Formats: sequence, structure tokens, C-alpha cells
Amino acid sequence: MSERLVVIGGDAAGMSAASQARRLKGPDELEIVAFERGHFSSYSACGIPYWVGGDVAARGELIARSPEEHRARDIDLRTRTEVTEIDLPGQRVRSRDLEAGTETWTGFDKLVIATGARPLRPPLPGIDAPGVHGVQTLDDGQALLDSLSAAPGRRAVVVGAGYIGVEMAEALLSRGYEVTVLTRGEQPMATLDPDMGRLVHRAMDGLGIRTVVSAPVTKILTGSDGRVRAVATEADEYPADVVVLGTGVEPETSLARAAGLPLGAYGGLLTDLSMRVRGHGNVWAGGDCVEVLDLVSGRERHVPLGTHANKHGQVIGANVGGGYATFPGVVGTAVSKVCDLEIARTGLREKDAREVGLRFTAVTVESTSRAGYYPGAAPMTVKMLAERRTGRLLGVQIVGREGAAKRVDVAAVALTARMTVEEMTALDLGYAPPFSPVWDPVLIAARKAAGAVRAAG
Amino acid sequence: MSERLVVIGGDAAGMSAASQARRLKGPDELEIVAFERGHFSSYSACGIPYWVGGDVAARGELIARSPEEHRARDIDLRTRTEVTEIDLPGQRVRSRDLEAGTETWTGFDKLVIATGARPLRPPLPGIDAPGVHGVQTLDDGQALLDSLSAAPGRRAVVVGAGYIGVEMAEALLSRGYEVTVLTRGEQPMATLDPDMGRLVHRAMDGLGIRTVVSAPVTKILTGSDGRVRAVATEADEYPADVVVLGTGVEPETSLARAAGLPLGAYGGLLTDLSMRVRGHGNVWAGGDCVEVLDLVSGRERHVPLGTHANKHGQVIGANVGGGYATFPGVVGTAVSKVCDLEIARTGLREKDAREVGLRFTAVTVESTSRAGYYPGAAPMTVKMLAERRTGRLLGVQIVGREGAAKRVDVAAVALTARMTVEEMTALDLGYAPPFSPVWDPVLIAARKAAGAVRAAG
Repeated sequence: MSERLVVIGGDAAGMSAASQARRLKGPDELEIVAFERGHFSSYSACGIPYWVGGDVAARGELIARSPEEHRARDIDLRTRTEVTEIDLPGQRVRSRDLEAGTETWTGFDKLVIATGARPLRPPLPGIDAPGVHGVQTLDDGQALLDSLSAAPGRRAVVVGAGYIGVEMAEALLSRGYEVTVLTRGEQPMATLDPDMGRLVHRAMDGLGIRTVVSAPVTKILTGSDGRVRAVATEADEYPADVVVLGTGVEPETSLARAAGLPLGAYGGLLTDLSMRVRGHGNVWAGGDCVEVLDLVSGRERHVPLGTHANKHGQVIGANVGGGYATFPGVVGTAVSKVCDLEIARTGLREKDAREVGLRFTAVTVESTSRAGYYPGAAPMTVKMLAERRTGRLLGVQIVGREGAAKRVDVAAVALTARMTVEEMTALDLGYAPPFSPVWDPVLIAARKAAGAVRAAG
Repeated sequence: MSERLVVIGGDAAGMSAASQARRLKGPDELEIVAFERGHFSSYSACGIPYWVGGDVAARGELIARSPEEHRARDIDLRTRTEVTEIDLPGQRVRSRDLEAGTETWTGFDKLVIATGARPLRPPLPGIDAPGVHGVQTLDDGQALLDSLSAAPGRRAVVVGAGYIGVEMAEALLSRGYEVTVLTRGEQPMATLDPDMGRLVHRAMDGLGIRTVVSAPVTKILTGSDGRVRAVATEADEYPADVVVLGTGVEPETSLARAAGLPLGAYGGLLTDLSMRVRGHGNVWAGGDCVEVLDLVSGRERHVPLGTHANKHGQVIGANVGGGYATFPGVVGTAVSKVCDLEIARTGLREKDAREVGLRFTAVTVESTSRAGYYPGAAPMTVKMLAERRTGRLLGVQIVGREGAAKRVDVAAVALTARMTVEEMTALDLGYAPPFSPVWDPVLIAARKAAGAVRAAG
């Protein structure tokens, strides 16, 4: 007799899980039903800023696998269908067809929850006015593009200066807008320490993106037509023809909460290493709706990133399909760019280290992406944190131009392997003048950090 | 009473050692005398192809620190002075001033041997004819440039298709020459497996560099003026206005051999982990004249690379200066490029693995440098070797365009940490559409390799 797998959520984690399970088990053994409330499946939300900015010409390019393609692989994917309840004891979910308005119960033997994250929309007056846009889903991106063509203007305000904020600032700049970024933070990119955030701030100034720090938004002001006309902070007003919200996300776990599934401090589902929801033998969860173990701090965190969602899906699919795989955790790697400025981080910031009781030494070095004499050598700043006494690497942040961002991968692997900065000084990294100075910037930082650890005794 | 350190060789390893020792001990404590037979000190030999090709405008840009700068730091650097004998029992070296022709004995308390490598010049008829050039030293590079301006032509033949060979092919191509590369090997880049070398071959064809494989050179033919006019193989003759030799190097250890110091199978000095010559308490050696431990195969190898030489110098200087540092070994990382083709390797090739008795699985994957939909996404081929049974990573080779070469660093760190390919599948590498597909090419290879290891049982 065949089993039925139900998947809630048709994006990266859910559909990777479904596809991997299908690879391992044919339709005779395993029936797969997937529910997605939007129109699209398996798309790259991380690509939305580049589509809005014009680097990516068409929405379709962001879609890795369409609903039709999934269906052709014997996955019964039902789009525009929202799951409204999980009945765990009854092993069934209730769904609502958003077009027809009808509700149905569907039984499951195994369940995958991949409900993603929802944008944090601060409860500000005017936040729902036309011209104010989130950029979480393809539908959001389409709405923003429609709004830009319908009511063209010249001034854009981006609220929030995290990854989405700075990427959307670039996108709007390349569409010809005057862009102002407002952040409550001391500096843009709060995922970096403030000293590294300052470098991003300075570079954004240089690109013509005005960034206002320590400026929490108090109100969205609308014109007589009801459309946004400005964004207000306590101190000032910023005229805006369009507003983009990059104010972060939180796990979308209302269904899971209602079903009594275990949630962590950030509201994300808690799973074991096989991505099974803790205490629930036949329920898995992955993607932006779960918390993951931070291997450096030993704590659970919420890290909504497509790359993790894909890995989760792969692991879940293998386990649901009768194989074996685990997701051991993350070290907190993230890379981004604003025009030609590259930004990268992995591991702990100073405040993260303090929060978990780690004493550390921090060093910062300046170097270049290529041998100094090679054309195109671009400056790069590398900050490195190491634990005092042990010298264990705790984190790396990099801000620079071409070749800066992906250098953080070396530190990500070193963190995973729990290397000391002294051990890192001997790493055999690729060297040739077009690719690196004879001492790679990461090695220069490691040498300085190792010296600081020795000096600190 | 002050001690005297004598350094033989004024390039990367020797002068890094001298500088680091000087940082730790002032001239009252430690006198430093360094001998260099050439005109220059502390230069980037790896930069010579880019200087010859015109990317680097002036010779001086390749010099990190001139003899005068070293002298200003209380290092008595004597250029154009060749050490002709090491008298270990007498703790002294004999040197010859190449200008004046005079000989002197200089006593030492501590000795650093950093005599580098010498080019392998096959004993072919005509090899010493005008127009045939090595590119080992700045003096060699200058001689080649002088020869190119004095006798301009349009046909260049490069003998050898390793790093120097392909880099010089690019250099001569950008100077407007028709370039032919001759190699005895089955494919160019014998530091890669032949299947990956074939990709380089094809790309070189595309760039207009003619590469002739399985073509050992038998003779250099000269014209009536005594100058080179062609290069002959058994099968053919290749007209040449200039010939560049990229036929490899061997450790320059004739002085060390004469002094009875221990040499390995490749003729390089053998040291301990502190870079002290084995069995000799006050003699250190580093750079291209030593053999290094390959951490993957457990064997000593000769790996003449500036990046290792610099690390050796740093370690020697720390130890000579009364500190403590070690050089644990290499994993065999090397990167290079020919025009926009990037080439990288680390760890063992198939034949290396076989040679040391390792059974392995090899996989090859195709991916891209950025998200497929992001402008500039370039194809990349990654080959990965893993040990059967244990799944331990053994090696990675990458051939691709922009963004390919430095990706090998992730594998270099994983090799150092002795990770399995299964562990690598969970690595938290930086992802954003401008920098990587959602699965980084190295992760895609690791997934395939992990699957192959599981399948092999």
C-alpha cells in the first residue's frame, strides 16, 4: 500500500524535499501532495532585487521549476491553495482553494512543513498605503514592478539596511531613483560589527545612496490620492514616490504553533539533526520556518537563507525517501553586494561572542584582492575574531570590492573544522598574482589574530 | 655578545626570514648578513609573465623590498655576491663578489639556506642560442624583454605547458605573437588529470594558442646569424622568432649537497617542522630549495611556490629570532590563468592517489560561477576525488572562467581539516545570486562524490 507525503509550502525547502523523495521513491510507493498559497514554485527569492533592478530580465528566470514541471514528475502541487490547519492526531491537513474558496481535508502519513518566513511589517500608520512594498515573494516583486511602472517617480525610500535593504537600494538606484535608506541601527548592515558597517556606509555614500542611521521610522505619510508621499522619522521627513520595506522576517509558524509543535526563542520550529520536528516521528520541517544550530555559539538561531532551505529540503527528502542524511547546522555565512561593494560575514560578531560568554581578540587588516602590482587589485578590509586562550576562530567579516565576498568561505570551512587562527596561518590557499597577494588577505588577518592571541597570553 | 645570522639567497624565503628575525631581535643582539647572486631582492618571480605581457608596467613593481630598503633595516644584504661553499664544521660560508671577483669567508652562528630552484634546461642542441629564454629570475625576464624589443618577430614557441608555460603563452599572445606551446604531456597542465587538462587544451585553442601535445622537443634550430629560428620535435618543425622555456625547475641545492646536508628524493633539503635542516641545530632552510610534507599523501614533495617560500621565511625568522613557529606542510594548492580561463587544483590527482595506494572515487560536475540567471554566470567544471570507504576528500580540480580559481580554497581548507565529502555537503558557504548558484559548485561536487562513496559501499 502506498504512503502519502504532504508538503506545506512550494518553495525551496518544500519542493527540494518533495523532489528528492520522488527520486528515491516512485509514485507507486509514495504519493506526494504539496500545497502552495502563491502562484509560483521553487523560485529564487534572493534573485528578486536583481529582477527589480533589471539585471534579470524576466520573472521566469527566477523560477527553477514551475508547478507544471513538478506535476510532470508526479508531484501533485496545488498552487493558490493555503493550508489552514494541521490536525496532527488525525494525520490530516485542511486546505483552502484561494480561487474557489472551497476547503478540503487531506490525510498524510508523513508531513513536511516548509511555510517559510513572513516579513516583519512594523505597525506604523500608513504602512499599508499604495506604494509601500515588501519584497518577500515573486508576487511582491511583481507588485513592486507594476507600481514602479504605474506611478513612476524619482525618489525611493528603503526602510531597513540589512541584505534586502541594501540590495533593493542598488536595484532602485539602477532604475534611476534617488535612493534614501533609513535604518534604526548605528550603521547599515547590522549583521556586521559597527566598525565594518561604517565601511559599508561610506561606500554607499560614494555610490550616491543616502543612508540615514539611528533613524527609526515613525509614520508613512500619504497624499490626497491615498498613495505614499513621504516617510517620517522622529527628526525628519523623507519624500518618497515609492517605499520598500527591508525590515526583516520572522518564521511563518502560525500553523505549527496552533498544532502544538515545538518552537524556539525566535518562533521557528525546532528539529533534530535529520530535520524531523522534535518529538514528532512523522513530521519534518525546513527552510525559513525553522531554527538552526549555530555551530560556533552552540545556540539555535533563525537564519532565513535560500541556501539552507535547499539543504534542508535535500536532507528531508532523503530521510522521507528512506535514505539517511543530516543537517549539522550553520556557521552564519552570508554574502551580499551593493553595486561593486562586496560584503561578507561568517561566525560571530563581537556582540554575539559576548552574548554567549566568549572572550575574544579582534583584529582588522587592510589588503588587496590581487597582488598589489596586478591590474584591478582592489582594497579589502578583513576583521577576524578569535577566542582568547584557545585561539579558536570565532568569526570573520569582509568588506571590499571584486573578490572580497567569497573569500569568507575559507573562514566558513575553518569555523566548521574548529580551527585556531594559528592553524589558519599555514593554510595552503591558492596564490597567483591575478588572484591574491602572496599572503591572502584572510591569512594576513589570521597572522595578526594569532599574534594578538599570543600577546593576550 | 651579538650573534651572526647568515642568509644565502635574497628572495622570498631568505629575506622574509631575515626581516622577521630583525623584527624580533635588534642589531645589538643579532647581526644579519645576506648574500644574493643576482641584482634584486624580495621580488615576485610569479609576476614575471605579467610584466612580460605588459599587464605590469615596470620591473620595479615586482620588487617588494629593494636591497637598499633591507639595508635601511640593518640587514647587510650583499647583492651580486654568490656563496660558493658552506663550511659547516667551521661555521662559515665562502662568498665571491661577482663584480670584483674577490672571495671572502664569513662566519655564522646561525645559517639560513634559501637558494631557490634552478630551471631544468633539457640538454638539447641549440638550447643556449640567442632568442631562447628562461623566465626564472627578474634578470631572465629583463633579458627576454630586451630580446623581444631587439629582434621583434611574430612567432613564439613555448616549450612546456605547466603554469609558467601557459602564463607565458598568454603574455606572448598579448604582445601580438602567434604562440605555439609544445608539451611532451598528453595534455597541457600535467598538474591536472588529463580529462581536466583537455578542457584547458580546448580553451587554449579557443584563445588562438596552438598547443601540440605528445611533442617532446628534440632540437633548437638556429639561423645563419646564430639566433633561434625554429624548434624541432620528432614529427615536425615550428618556426620561432623567440623561444621561452617553461620546462620546470629543480631545487638549487648544490651547496647544500657539497656540505653534506640531507636531501630528499627530489633533491630538496629536508627540514623538520620548524624548518630546521634535519640533524642540524643551527641551519634552517626554506623556499624552493626544500621539500615539503604533502599532508594528503603523507609524502615529501617539491612544490616551488612563492606563497610557501614566504611562509617558510616567516617561520624561520620567528624561530631564529627566539620565537616559535612551524610549517606543517602543504595540500598542493595551485591556481593559474590563461587569459580569462582559470585553472585550480589542490590535493591529489588520480595518479598521485594511485601512487600512494589510495583507492578513490572521482566525480566531475558542471556548474556556474553565479546563479544561472545572473548576468556573467560562467561555466565551471569541478572534479573531486574522495577515498573509498572513508569518503575523505583527496583532491579537487577546477577549470572555468571568472570565479573558478579561488573556489579551490574551500577544498584546501577541507583537506587540511581531513573532512569527508559527506561533511562537505553541509558546508555553510556564502550564497547570493551574484556570487554563486544556491548550491555552490564545490558543494554540488561534494554531493555527487558523497553519493558515489555511498554507492561504492
